[in-house]
Amino acid sequence: MSFFSFELDPALAADPVFELHQHGKMAIAPTVPLASRDDLSLAYTPGVARVCEAIAADPALAADYTWTANTVAVVTDGTAVLGLGDIGPRAAMPVMEGKAVLFKQFGGVDAVPICLDTKDVDELVAIVTALAPSFGGINLEDISAPRCFEIERRLDDALDIPVFHDDQHGTAVVTLAALRNATTLLGRRFADLRVVISGAGAAGVAITKVLISAGVNGANVIVCDSRGIVHAERGDLNPAKAELAAMTNFSGRTGGITEALVGADVLIGVSGGTIGEDALAGMSRGGIIFGLANPTPEVLPAIAHRYAAVVATGRSDFPNQINNVLAFPGIFRGALDARATTVTEGMKVAAAEAIAEVVADDLRPEQIVPSPLDPRVAPAVAAAVARAAERDGVARRISAPVETEPAAV
Amino acid sequence: MSFFSFELDPALAADPVFELHQHGKMAIAPTVPLASRDDLSLAYTPGVARVCEAIAADPALAADYTWTANTVAVVTDGTAVLGLGDIGPRAAMPVMEGKAVLFKQFGGVDAVPICLDTKDVDELVAIVTALAPSFGGINLEDISAPRCFEIERRLDDALDIPVFHDDQHGTAVVTLAALRNATTLLGRRFADLRVVISGAGAAGVAITKVLISAGVNGANVIVCDSRGIVHAERGDLNPAKAELAAMTNFSGRTGGITEALVGADVLIGVSGGTIGEDALAGMSRGGIIFGLANPTPEVLPAIAHRYAAVVATGRSDFPNQINNVLAFPGIFRGALDARATTVTEGMKVAAAEAIAEVVADDLRPEQIVPSPLDPRVAPAVAAAVARAAERDGVARRISAPVETEPAAV
Repeated sequence: MSFFSFELDPALAADPVFELHQHGKMAIAPTVPLASRDDLSLAYTPGVARVCEAIAADPALAADYTWTANTVAVVTDGTAVLGLGDIGPRAAMPVMEGKAVLFKQFGGVDAVPICLDTKDVDELVAIVTALAPSFGGINLEDISAPRCFEIERRLDDALDIPVFHDDQHGTAVVTLAALRNATTLLGRRFADLRVVISGAGAAGVAITKVLISAGVNGANVIVCDSRGIVHAERGDLNPAKAELAAMTNFSGRTGGITEALVGADVLIGVSGGTIGEDALAGMSRGGIIFGLANPTPEVLPAIAHRYAAVVATGRSDFPNQINNVLAFPGIFRGALDARATTVTEGMKVAAAEAIAEVVADDLRPEQIVPSPLDPRVAPAVAAAVARAAERDGVARRISAPVETEPAAV
Repeated sequence: MSFFSFELDPALAADPVFELHQHGKMAIAPTVPLASRDDLSLAYTPGVARVCEAIAADPALAADYTWTANTVAVVTDGTAVLGLGDIGPRAAMPVMEGKAVLFKQFGGVDAVPICLDTKDVDELVAIVTALAPSFGGINLEDISAPRCFEIERRLDDALDIPVFHDDQHGTAVVTLAALRNATTLLGRRFADLRVVISGAGAAGVAITKVLISAGVNGANVIVCDSRGIVHAERGDLNPAKAELAAMTNFSGRTGGITEALVGADVLIGVSGGTIGEDALAGMSRGGIIFGLANPTPEVLPAIAHRYAAVVATGRSDFPNQINNVLAFPGIFRGALDARATTVTEGMKVAAAEAIAEVVADDLRPEQIVPSPLDPRVAPAVAAAVARAAERDGVARRISAPVETEPAAV
């Protein structure tokens, strides 16, 4: 089999998904005229040399006179793509292109999909570090846990531009927004919630941390992985899970999901698989269930409603879709506008509050988050994130205008 | 000084070059609709998963269902940018963006500027190798000699997509085209030409090789570097120059540019600096002088015309501009259309012939190459390159339609 094929498979070509994907989903568009000799002498040689010399003398000017300040690399190694697992960099590209065009559509951010043919953590860190001068931010995507934690931490330490692993923090931000509105609706307080998070991968770790940052009491949080409740006595914890064990489950509960859920007010599923009704029966009544696995939630809404008052999933065909597109375009828009050096916990919490606020006037059990298509979301998130960047002292530009014009299609 | 600045320098903002460069010269454009829930479910989850699965099962499909088959990385380490030298990856970006938009404008190729923050040859090779699944071709740019030779060779060996160092081969192809038309005009034959190439960097090495590929007799070629004539007895030759010594100057001439030019029919300057009239006086009359250094040719046209019948430079304000934009958009258009695994010498010679042919009907001493804006050039080059790729057995797709619609601006 050759690497490239010429004739499209007729069955695929007739499928609307494959028809849409022919030749990919994005293109490069020049934003300057290139029709005349004078145009070329400004945009290319000899004129361009003066811009190069100015940036060589003052690197700060790169942000003003190149596209980098508005450009994000969407970086993957293809090891944890959607629910498909380690399908490699080539097969990951359609997801990265999709992410890139959503960045543009909702945040006005120019995003470039970068699918890397290596799984070595040191090499991934070295490559993205070397790529950094070409971009204003790095969106890590679909990199398997626990490698994703080390890669993100090392890149964030090495680089002075935002590094954001969306599978962790995008999911965590939207989950926090949904939980905030759900608790408001139910008249609960974050500090009192007993929360179970089923899944200790990228999303589970980040959700746990952001909920605690936002006021949930870690003592009352229990995280489960595939072997059951995460607790400090377990000898099989990777560093990320050991950190979770130290910040949660202060009573040292042990056992499986059934034991974890006894008395819980909130269940957040980010594990895949199914959580049975026998386990759900232990929850305190009138609570909250988010089954976020795609395409099959850990708890289907029809069942969840027997045990909880507010229910969300990751799916577009049920109410309350927890969709990262509510977060990442606005978060990067705001971080780029502020020319932030990093994405702080404060910026993430601010993003969640902004998402929650969009539907605060019309909160209903079936509307705790805005629609992914709600045009109010990204500008609100961007403004909140830029303000939080200033507040947290990581902004290099103050009170920048927010550009949110959707891209022409 | 912070890395980013906020207020534009008013003097820069009023300068047309800097005004044009504000926010850079390019953007990402989605090519699929993203306005409705259905749109998202096709372009992103859940629909995209099926495309990923199909590519995971058959990597050949990546070329059909992602943007990669039309996308080229314009890669630099910023070590040899224009005539400015080693100004680093950030300051190189305006040139790479310029290159990228010219790729789109003239070849319909989506090109992504990648400025890498490393000068280590092994690391550059490893990074570009890891990036390769994201692209259909690699255009190396402004990488210093002799490092550029090893980097290109190793990448070409490692990758099954075209790797092309434009400073070498783009310049060589257009120079070959110009020399072909100049010799036709003068009634000369390639096999009889005595050629002096002043400069043994990226361009000089590639010009020497492509001229010999195209029929110039290496015995009658003399290359000079900053220390004088390259000959096999010199002990200071890097591997690239040692290779030149073996394929040129069979009589073993020694000395400087003055000795080299005695009896020469053709002088090609790719060295910078000035070649004096005392040296030019040794050339045989009625020949050819190309002074390609920018902005100051090695021989200004007014002087060159005292010693030669046909004169070219790299500048747009003199006749006969040897401009790489005549080559690289069409070469990559053709290589991508053919899904070529490499760029052969045959493809380069075919590109040169196609460029030369565009003005063959109206050859004049002041028109031996087309204008860089001539819309006939890129389609002709693309078609010739694709045919040559088939002929040389490196095409994975046969007789593909050539897409040459210029980009909308």
